[in-house]
Amino acid sequence: MTDTLPDTMRASVMTGVETLRIEDRPVPTPGPREVLVEVAAVGVCGSDVHYYRHGRIGDFVVDDPMILGHELSGRIAAVGDGVDPGRIGQRVAVEPQHPCRRCTQCTAGRYNLCPEMKFYATPPIDGAFCRFVTIDDDMAHPVPDSMSDEAAALLEPLSVAITTMRKAGVAPGTSVLIAGAGPIGVICAQAARAFGAARIVVSDPVASRREGALRFGATEVLDPMTDDVSAIDPVDAFIDASGVPVAVVAGIKAVGPAGHVVLVGMGADEYPLPVSHIQNLEITVTGVFRYTDTWPAAIHLVASGAVDLDAMVTGRYDLEHAADALESDTDPDSLKSIVRPN
Amino acid sequence: MTDTLPDTMRASVMTGVETLRIEDRPVPTPGPREVLVEVAAVGVCGSDVHYYRHGRIGDFVVDDPMILGHELSGRIAAVGDGVDPGRIGQRVAVEPQHPCRRCTQCTAGRYNLCPEMKFYATPPIDGAFCRFVTIDDDMAHPVPDSMSDEAAALLEPLSVAITTMRKAGVAPGTSVLIAGAGPIGVICAQAARAFGAARIVVSDPVASRREGALRFGATEVLDPMTDDVSAIDPVDAFIDASGVPVAVVAGIKAVGPAGHVVLVGMGADEYPLPVSHIQNLEITVTGVFRYTDTWPAAIHLVASGAVDLDAMVTGRYDLEHAADALESDTDPDSLKSIVRPN
Amino acid sequence: MTDTLPDTMRASVMTGVETLRIEDRPVPTPGPREVLVEVAAVGVCGSDVHYYRHGRIGDFVVDDPMILGHELSGRIAAVGDGVDPGRIGQRVAVEPQHPCRRCTQCTAGRYNLCPEMKFYATPPIDGAFCRFVTIDDDMAHPVPDSMSDEAAALLEPLSVAITTMRKAGVAPGTSVLIAGAGPIGVICAQAARAFGAARIVVSDPVASRREGALRFGATEVLDPMTDDVSAIDPVDAFIDASGVPVAVVAGIKAVGPAGHVVLVGMGADEYPLPVSHIQNLEITVTGVFRYTDTWPAAIHLVASGAVDLDAMVTGRYDLEHAADALESDTDPDSLKSIVRPN
Amino acid sequence: MTDTLPDTMRASVMTGVETLRIEDRPVPTPGPREVLVEVAAVGVCGSDVHYYRHGRIGDFVVDDPMILGHELSGRIAAVGDGVDPGRIGQRVAVEPQHPCRRCTQCTAGRYNLCPEMKFYATPPIDGAFCRFVTIDDDMAHPVPDSMSDEAAALLEPLSVAITTMRKAGVAPGTSVLIAGAGPIGVICAQAARAFGAARIVVSDPVASRREGALRFGATEVLDPMTDDVSAIDPVDAFIDASGVPVAVVAGIKAVGPAGHVVLVGMGADEYPLPVSHIQNLEITVTGVFRYTDTWPAAIHLVASGAVDLDAMVTGRYDLEHAADALESDTDPDSLKSIVRPN
Repeated sequence: MTDTLPDTMRASVMTGVETLRIEDRPVPTPGPREVLVEVAAVGVCGSDVHYYRHGRIGDFVVDDPMILGHELSGRIAAVGDGVDPGRIGQRVAVEPQHPCRRCTQCTAGRYNLCPEMKFYATPPIDGAFCRFVTIDDDMAHPVPDSMSDEAAALLEPLSVAITTMRKAGVAPGTSVLIAGAGPIGVICAQAARAFGAARIVVSDPVASRREGALRFGATEVLDPMTDDVSAIDPVDAFIDASGVPVAVVAGIKAVGPAGHVVLVGMGADEYPLPVSHIQNLEITVTGVFRYTDTWPAAIHLVASGAVDLDAMVTGRYDLEHAADALESDTDPDSLKSIVRPN
Repeated sequence: MTDTLPDTMRASVMTGVETLRIEDRPVPTPGPREVLVEVAAVGVCGSDVHYYRHGRIGDFVVDDPMILGHELSGRIAAVGDGVDPGRIGQRVAVEPQHPCRRCTQCTAGRYNLCPEMKFYATPPIDGAFCRFVTIDDDMAHPVPDSMSDEAAALLEPLSVAITTMRKAGVAPGTSVLIAGAGPIGVICAQAARAFGAARIVVSDPVASRREGALRFGATEVLDPMTDDVSAIDPVDAFIDASGVPVAVVAGIKAVGPAGHVVLVGMGADEYPLPVSHIQNLEITVTGVFRYTDTWPAAIHLVASGAVDLDAMVTGRYDLEHAADALESDTDPDSLKSIVRPN
Repeated sequence: MTDTLPDTMRASVMTGVETLRIEDRPVPTPGPREVLVEVAAVGVCGSDVHYYRHGRIGDFVVDDPMILGHELSGRIAAVGDGVDPGRIGQRVAVEPQHPCRRCTQCTAGRYNLCPEMKFYATPPIDGAFCRFVTIDDDMAHPVPDSMSDEAAALLEPLSVAITTMRKAGVAPGTSVLIAGAGPIGVICAQAARAFGAARIVVSDPVASRREGALRFGATEVLDPMTDDVSAIDPVDAFIDASGVPVAVVAGIKAVGPAGHVVLVGMGADEYPLPVSHIQNLEITVTGVFRYTDTWPAAIHLVASGAVDLDAMVTGRYDLEHAADALESDTDPDSLKSIVRPN
Repeated sequence: MTDTLPDTMRASVMTGVETLRIEDRPVPTPGPREVLVEVAAVGVCGSDVHYYRHGRIGDFVVDDPMILGHELSGRIAAVGDGVDPGRIGQRVAVEPQHPCRRCTQCTAGRYNLCPEMKFYATPPIDGAFCRFVTIDDDMAHPVPDSMSDEAAALLEPLSVAITTMRKAGVAPGTSVLIAGAGPIGVICAQAARAFGAARIVVSDPVASRREGALRFGATEVLDPMTDDVSAIDPVDAFIDASGVPVAVVAGIKAVGPAGHVVLVGMGADEYPLPVSHIQNLEITVTGVFRYTDTWPAAIHLVASGAVDLDAMVTGRYDLEHAADALESDTDPDSLKSIVRPN
């Protein structure tokens, strides 16, 4: 049930801090209800960069060689038992999650919180900086021909943004403050506009990033070095895409009664929050840890033109230059880098 | 439309820090849609004690003489225009809120968050350590004859607990951790049991308080001085009734995926929270600021025997001894003091 | 606190079935917290037409002369006590509700369900086919200069559509079926698109109305006379804007598991529904009765261009020709008629 | 990984309408992540009776011999691959669902609506009127020693009632009307009391059933033959456990603004509902189709004494007398019959 496939493939393997090596790896075989995807494009995420630079994120440590990359699209090259062989050749965006499907979280519809989750590029699970990957058939979402490979790969960070909008209660008329105009902040600004937000304030200390935010949906930008973010007209929701504790405090203080705070950026394990403001205004504070059921909505937002992912791509790299892609974040003009393994 | 009423009444007025004085005050006249309530019993709340000891709570400062007390019951002694005179004589529990009823919060059903709220015993609004008070007619909730004046007064803290249960998502089968076995912790334990919680863990460093918690619904107690509260089997919800930052941190860490944290106790304005735990498990954190639509539920819980408020009363004082009531919290065996102005 | 105002004004009064008469009426005086609005534009609603033709809607009977019209915009001409006189001259859209603000429904945030509601053009309350009306200050919503008087008037039916979207759970990616391509169906199609719906199927037996629906957001149209509406790919939500029982049955059968049905159109008091389909798929069925907290969202949707109300206006009438406006619904090319009293 | 097990077992097989036959069947072998349960007690459900009498329920037709029974408890006798062998011997209540775990409904946490569901005693899947059954390991819920086999079996209908309470929004203080005092009506009354309902009105035309309802939680009973059920003080929620269209209409009319209607009883495919009442009061109407995530809550409610299932059992039968169990519903004094296969 496959094309003619090679036995081995090239992969960019992280073998240590700031060290990638091209290796030959066996092409994986799709198991029951799995598909084999020939990778077309892989977005570089802040978490990839963090593993590359520090070898760990919190309790997740890269002890053994691991392949990075979890924002990806491709083409189905083979299918496992129980999957319609007619899907071979289909262009897909990959939702890089493999939940257990049986635990309390999974059966409650929160498979993103499955304690037995196997997630791409989270130790010890390999990611997508390679030619082929396998994934459960229902996690390979067909995309329309009109969508580019790169946009299809970036449905993953858009899924984070969609989850954020849902948790923040963004709907027509909502006002939102977003801290941070990096890739996640910008994609959240786009998602906020697509969800109908009326007022989208973005704060970032870097002028070029503020300008970028204005191109992608912000109705107003602030420089936290000179503006008092906490003193703006109260917003319905604050979204942190910075991971900077002082930005989180200012952002929470900008939220009005019964408002929502969603923390997307990862900062320190523990840091001070303005608790009495949260209590007195009955604000709800939560975080986003991946996503459930977002690809169909993400595909619609991109296909309808409400969100533009292609315009966010500022660099393209082949597998041999994956390290350059990971290091591109030091360039303030870089927004989103793509690795193309094939 | 009234009984024969006196022109003046005695009131216990806070004239300075740790200073109460009995004064003669005019008996208030109920305005349109208001009732005059002859006060029967007033519970002493931690916020009364805080104003008494410190003269302020956060931004709320007692600049002028003020009457304390906001947990109260009584009997309708007169009615204003537009109120059925047949209510005169009715025993009522008072919901001590006077919202504007027109702002965004009020029309959205969140009148507790009304920025123009006039709340009993919150500067500069007088409270109930006196013989008569006025309140909007819909905030004077009739109570059954079987309910004591003291239980009727304590429907107010029970309302805080009911709001807490709603925000914490407590329902049959839920597991709950409560930090603090003072009056609010104990009443939350009772409410949790009444809402169907299966496992109710209460932590408090004082042994006699832990014993009290076990009498009022706790299924398990912990001493945070010797037990690692954060290491218990994960709970669905953590309720802080201590206001102690270190207890809040431990409690949040004890919450499992998609769990709820409700902060009831007032601690510092700002203090460290375990943010990455909140993010990685998508826990929601919020606070309780008063209540909406709780008296009918509270009356049912007490009338049906599901919650026992009378058993929580450990001291009774007349108006002249209101200071003793306020100072009774230094006695570890004191749980809830009542002032009876008449 | 007013401009120089006339003592009397002309009004179009419904004095019997299919009978309107121009009368002189006193200009009303705004009470406390009320404003006087000089009416600019009034949309004609199906309920106005129904009162005009039948003299009643269900239990609401026009026993005495009554002024029709409840979709309106205008300019504040005077203010009552407690209202900022600086509002005089402000252009506003009127939310035509006067709830009691004290009952259980009002304090719960459901003021649309207030049993003591006074609603424009619902017997015995007069509406807006006249030069001046009064309304509570918070129900007079300021509109931007860029918005036409007619669009501002039509924020009212858009509010119905927004409420419908909220109840139907419409969000980015949702699929929706709408029965009926009259004014409410078309405005619901526009709202569905603005809320992010991916698939918007509209059914109507009239070809010109189907064409209209396609101009206003439908992605697909059906003719219920020849197409089997119940057999389409299951939708997440069905919205009835027809009031036709057979269309409601077909629409409900088109809804998939855990889907939503919102009945906006008024049909018969009682008619058969496909109950076992509702049960087996755990579909929720509900209705829309006016709205709460919709004008700010509506203003944003129109101001941002996401919804186009001006393009829906197909006829304009002065007060003397209000009867023509009410009768314009017999013309299949008529979508929305406006009466301009001044 | 098993006890010594027999190769064959006796089963009561429905071979035609009103025809059961004892047959020898092979003892099933648990597959991966499955357990083999030795059946202790099986409750007789109305759907079993309906299949027995009519050979079908709607589109589900008993074309081939089938074993009835889906309310069951037992003891784990063997485990399949991937299941802890330490579970052998464990007493369990069986949740008789085998969802696909991969479809949109399953991954959204609504596995009860899985279109590929295999459910006990729903054609062509066999049920539990036999000595042994297999089930997925996570659907075999351990029960405490204090709980009887019969109560453990009846956690299944209690799960229906818990789902009903959740959908009806029952919480402390709620008022509820229940139509029908058969097993489901009575168990809903018990659940309503356990969820904190303050007022529980039960209507049934049979006097002995009304008396039963009063023993199990009803605060008030009505005879629909003589009482006007639609005219009672409005309730927050109406639960139909009768399947009788005229009772459903009267019940819906008894619901107040923003109230809930949950249809549990199966009546006709299509019948008239009071649509304008649903619309004008924005009532939500839905149904219950099985359950998700209810056994832990159900176990707590029974273990804590809040719900008494043992007291509902009015008849016990061995496998040879399963037909008598199925026919016991004609006795008005029969409430719940149990088949004990071993």
